Amino acid sequence: MVFIATSLDGFIADRNGGLDWLNSVPNPGQLDMGYKKFVEQVDALVMGRNTFETVCGFDGDWPYNQPVFVLSGTLNTLPEEYRDKAELVKGSLTEVLEKIHNKGYNRLYIDGGLTIQNFLKEDLVDELTITTIPIMLGVGSPLFSKLAKDLEFSLVESKVFLNQIVQNHYRRKK
Amino acid sequence: MVFIATSLDGFIADRNGGLDWLNSVPNPGQLDMGYKKFVEQVDALVMGRNTFETVCGFDGDWPYNQPVFVLSGTLNTLPEEYRDKAELVKGSLTEVLEKIHNKGYNRLYIDGGLTIQNFLKEDLVDELTITTIPIMLGVGSPLFSKLAKDLEFSLVESKVFLNQIVQNHYRRKK
Repeated sequence: MVFIATSLDGFIADRNGGLDWLNSVPNPGQLDMGYKKFVEQVDALVMGRNTFETVCGFDGDWPYNQPVFVLSGTLNTLPEEYRDKAELVKGSLTEVLEKIHNKGYNRLYIDGGLTIQNFLKEDLVDELTITTIPIMLGVGSPLFSKLAKDLEFSLVESKVFLNQIVQNHYRRKK
Repeated sequence: MVFIATSLDGFIADRNGGLDWLNSVPNPGQLDMGYKKFVEQVDALVMGRNTFETVCGFDGDWPYNQPVFVLSGTLNTLPEEYRDKAELVKGSLTEVLEKIHNKGYNRLYIDGGLTIQNFLKEDLVDELTITTIPIMLGVGSPLFSKLAKDLEFSLVESKVFLNQIVQNHYRRKK
């Protein structure tokens, strides 16, 4: 499952990797737009190294209660202070998923731009919630990349938050 | 004003320029999703040569009642049979718009991938209605391209058609 915010033109980070544009719609009540509810229902997280390092850099407590699996082709170990929170996984996505499923984790939160793209390329994303911020960035890190074949989805629900932000929940049509 | 359908990943035509994916959601009643109402309220159309040639290739009657302005850097004249329907315009977009506005046409339907991109680059799009088909194409002609600066929009309305297709109407925030 993917839960991510994009610009109107499909970017998930601006040209400098920044996320300030996520706040271009005033959100005085700090509405979370379903994020907490989404995170609570996942069994585990799967993210790439970039996203892992970003999360490590956040101020405050470690944000997840569930196990985190970090995909990396380059790292051999995770920094010691994170070893009770996250686990490094290697291999093809199919192998990685088999390993994670065998541990009993089925509802997975797939996060990070390249990781989402890689899962989509192998048609491994069942559910996708896209929250669209009404701004065009023009450049940045795109959510989507090339696919070998079309992927059809079904719209599960469409919501509007703060009168400005459309959130669409899609499920892969199989 | 722009009124256009895109795939979930932002394409307006598939890898072969095709539009069959627009029909991936069954639409037995031929619901037009606001297109007729949109077209009726415009004063004129502005499109690129590619789109013009596509429209010329459609079966049936010429689809527009309003004047059509065709942007082209290469054409010197339009084919004779279209000269009562469309007019060739040249110059910068600002010059072209001045000319069209001077003729009394203010509500303009901007159509065609490259033309929309060029208008967005110069921040000349006031309203944008995007109809999102729940399919990822992975490759094709993108709706969006690079911008020199962020463009903020306001959501005017969000609708769902056929339980599957989200249509968002945005207005440029100035």
